[in-house]
Formats: sequence, C-alpha cells, structure tokens
Amino acid sequence: MLEALDYIGLVAFAISGVLSAANRNLDILGGYIIAFITALGGGTIRDLLLNVDVAWMTSFYQILVVIGGASFAILFRGRLRYWRRTLSIFDTIGISVFTIIGVQKGLAHDQIPLIAVFLGMITATFGGLLRDVLCNEIPLIFKDEIYAIPCLIGGSFYLAGDYLGIENTSWFLWVSILIIIILRTLAVIFSWKLPLIKQFK
Amino acid sequence: MLEALDYIGLVAFAISGVLSAANRNLDILGGYIIAFITALGGGTIRDLLLNVDVAWMTSFYQILVVIGGASFAILFRGRLRYWRRTLSIFDTIGISVFTIIGVQKGLAHDQIPLIAVFLGMITATFGGLLRDVLCNEIPLIFKDEIYAIPCLIGGSFYLAGDYLGIENTSWFLWVSILIIIILRTLAVIFSWKLPLIKQFK
Amino acid sequence: MLEALDYIGLVAFAISGVLSAANRNLDILGGYIIAFITALGGGTIRDLLLNVDVAWMTSFYQILVVIGGASFAILFRGRLRYWRRTLSIFDTIGISVFTIIGVQKGLAHDQIPLIAVFLGMITATFGGLLRDVLCNEIPLIFKDEIYAIPCLIGGSFYLAGDYLGIENTSWFLWVSILIIIILRTLAVIFSWKLPLIKQFK
Repeated sequence: MLEALDYIGLVAFAISGVLSAANRNLDILGGYIIAFITALGGGTIRDLLLNVDVAWMTSFYQILVVIGGASFAILFRGRLRYWRRTLSIFDTIGISVFTIIGVQKGLAHDQIPLIAVFLGMITATFGGLLRDVLCNEIPLIFKDEIYAIPCLIGGSFYLAGDYLGIENTSWFLWVSILIIIILRTLAVIFSWKLPLIKQFK
Repeated sequence: MLEALDYIGLVAFAISGVLSAANRNLDILGGYIIAFITALGGGTIRDLLLNVDVAWMTSFYQILVVIGGASFAILFRGRLRYWRRTLSIFDTIGISVFTIIGVQKGLAHDQIPLIAVFLGMITATFGGLLRDVLCNEIPLIFKDEIYAIPCLIGGSFYLAGDYLGIENTSWFLWVSILIIIILRTLAVIFSWKLPLIKQFK
Repeated sequence: MLEALDYIGLVAFAISGVLSAANRNLDILGGYIIAFITALGGGTIRDLLLNVDVAWMTSFYQILVVIGGASFAILFRGRLRYWRRTLSIFDTIGISVFTIIGVQKGLAHDQIPLIAVFLGMITATFGGLLRDVLCNEIPLIFKDEIYAIPCLIGGSFYLAGDYLGIENTSWFLWVSILIIIILRTLAVIFSWKLPLIKQFK
C-alpha cells in the first residue's frame, strides 16, 4: 500500500518535471532527465547524506514508473491542464509518502530525531528544488504556498509515534500521512504562505 | 590507449569550462573551478551514485591534465576560435570514452544494465550540465543538437557485447566508442535535434 | 578554541544565507534552508567526495548554531546593515577555520596534499557557491575580491607544516588561520581581484 502511494508520488513528480521542462522549451530527453531528477533527486540526496546505497539504483520498478509518468506527460501534455487538480492531489500524496519514507530511513540508520525529520523533508522537497535549479528558476518551495512545513509537521508526528514505541507499520503511519495531505491541501485552498523574510524588517 | 583518449576528453571538457567561464566574465580561479567541475563532475556524480570512492581524488594525472587544459585555454583563449572544429572533435572523443568508462564502472559494481547505461551517459554529460548550472544557463544537453543520445546508443551497444560475453577490452570497446563518435559527428553536421516537448501539444 | 571559531563561521555563513534569501524575496523557511546549505554545504561536499559520513549529521550543536544564526538574521535583519563590518570579520574567521578543518580531514583520510588543499578550499567556499546557485546568481567566488585564494595559500602553509612533522595542534595551526584572515582582509580593503579570463585575449 505504501509502495503503491510511493509510485503515485513518483508519477506526479515525473509529470511536474516534464511540465517544467516544457515551459523552458527543452527537448524530449531533457524532459526525461528533469523528470528523473524531480522524482528521484530528493531520495538521492537523502541517501548521499546517509552515506548508504542510493535506493532507486536497485529499484527497477521505480525507474519504470518514472519513465512511464514522463512518457505520459510528454504524450498527453496538452490535456494535462484539465487534470491540474488531479495532479495536485497526486503531488500531495507524493510528498506525504516521501516524507514518511525519509523519516523511516533516517531512523533505520540511527539518526537523531531532528535529522530524521530533515531527511523526510529533503526526500519530499529537494527533487523539486533540483528541478527548479536545472530550469534556472528560484526554487518554488522557498516562496509559494507552504509545501515543506506540512512535511515537517507530519514527519515530527510520525517520529513521536516511533519514539513512544507505537509500531511504525500501524495506524500511526497513516495518520502521519493524512496530516501532511490535509495540511498541504488546506494550504493550497486557503493560499497559506509563510511570512517573507523582508516582512521582519 | 583508452587512458590517452580519456585525457583528451578531460582537456576538451576543461577548455569548454574555461570558455563558459569567460563568457560569464569570471576570473581566472572561476575558470579553473568550472574547468574542474566540467571535466570531473560527471564522473564524480557517477561515483557518488555508486557509493564508491571518487575516481579523480586518487588520480594525480587526471588533475594535472585538467589544470593543463584549463591553463592552455586561459592563455590562448583568443586563438581557440580558430580551433573550434578541433575542440569539437576532442569533445566528441571525450563523451565517447567517458560513456564507456561509466558503463564499465557500473558493470564492475554489479548494476543492472539500464543503470549501467545511465551511468555512462551521466559520466559523459553531467559535467557539462553542472557547468551550465554554475554559469546560470539552461543546460545545453537539454535543447541543442543531440548529445546524450549517441552516448545512450553506444553505451547500450557496449553493454550488449558484455552481455554476450565478448571480452570488454577487445574490438567491441572500440566499435562502441566509434558508434558514439560517428553519431555525434553526424548530429553536429546535420543539426539533428530531438523534438521539443511542446511539439507534442 | 578551534570549535568556537568554527561556530563563529557557521553563524556568519547562516546569516549570509538569510541575507541572500531576503534579497530574493524568499519566505522564512527558504531563509533557513539557504542558511543551512550555505553554512554546511561546503563540509557536506567535502565529506561526499571523501566518501565518509557527513559531519553535521552527527553534530547537534552545529545544527543548533546554524538555526540560531539564521533566526537572529531573520529577526534583526534591519539592523544587520550597521554590522556589515562585524559580519565580514565573522565570515573571514569562518573561511579560515573551515579551510584548516577541511585540510585536516583530507589528511586524516590519506589524501594527497593537493587534494587536501582542494578539500580545504571546498569546505570554505562551496557552501557559498551552492547559496548563489540556489538564489539563481553567478557564484560570487568566481568574480569578486579574492576569496578562495587566501584559503589555498593558508591551506598550503598548514599542509607544509604537517609535512614537516610540526604537530598540527600547535602554533602552526594558528599561523595558518592568521594567514588566511590577513590575506582576505587585505583583499577586501584593497579590492584585490584576480584578472578576468577575458583580459588574456
């Protein structure tokens, strides 16, 4: 089930990579490469920081899902505008699952709680950050509706459950994911934004 | 022989790094740093993904060759315009050799074939990608004459040979390199480009 | 003592990250993330290249210091303009200490001298380079007053001491740090710049 949601997230991220590439007038291969980096970049940075083997390098299915998502986006790019809401839901599912997977992996490698939550956020958001850097844009997560904050909150909640000894495959996992999904959805609906640094002048 | 071609590639990449830096009006040290990142960045990303020691860190000769190539480019920058064709040939040799070295290294570390080919392409092209990101440009490989596709094709051919048990230091190696060189040269001559994503609207 | 100076450097780098983020009109979380990457990015790249565990991941204090420095910068951003000189001194202390820590770590992991000096420079300057890339700017270190050269000189001096067998916690350490501080300070005062590549036309 977690794996299925992980794949949904990969598809959403691959599609968002292709759309960014299209906005920049890149070619098809550029679209695939940006799709890969968007979908798998966050997990790659997490694994590099943990100094462990990079997860997707041994996961043929993840690679296929990204190729599938990117191909779909390239072929049906014109129609994707009608599916914007669906894509946004997919993306939200993606960041929620990526966050929890990142926290789990941090804990599995004996990181302190703070770092584990950071790794969850990095897994969820740094793929998009790399996408924006490659497309020569200021990363979205730094200025739009709150995106990383729900990950930090949901990740912390999951961590608390783990800390209290609640088995991490239980309902706690799903509540954590739901927290992220709800907070992010509310943020999009009500345009919740963090204050800009300038406002503290 | 493969090593000699590897050095030719490093020189070509170092020079292209310096030229990009000059276009952006950077200083000499900026030129050297971009030269290093262009020449050695692809292999670095490959080795980070493989979670193995970074190759150039233990290769004094590679570092010297890059410093030499960058110094040459800085000193004779004015004349390099007359050598554009030679540089382009050097660059083509570079991506062909880098690709095969990347595929070899992926296989040596028990990666699945698809990943091995990816690693070949990454070795050949991601140094240039980092160069463009640092110089605040949309990466060239995403929009110009096909550059990464010949690497993918030649790398796959080499892989097939390895798969069929043909010894990888034999003629198969050279045919693979030649395939990349010929395809890339044809792409430059005839301005082969991939379709843009937009064209699929 | 070295640790205390290390923290001063982290604070200076965190503040410079927040100021860059403010210039780009980013939100608070963007400020924190850029602060982290500026302060810890150089050491992270060094550790990735060395293929060893990333230092800050096991250093709760370093993380707290960066959070503290970034929070301070966000809250008192308006007044920081009066403290520009103090910040510049902090930054100079930072690069000097980061350089020596980088060289030490390179030597501790049996790198050749040239690489150890490179790692010192990378530790000191590549956090700022990542900051500039994320804020969509040409990296400062490539074009302004000399910044990396004092690191290379001080790092080489320290290396020479190590090579001659002078114990590396002795006066030699402090002289190396002082060399970097003095050279960088002179560079700022007298606007020392490296020649641009273009000038070699």
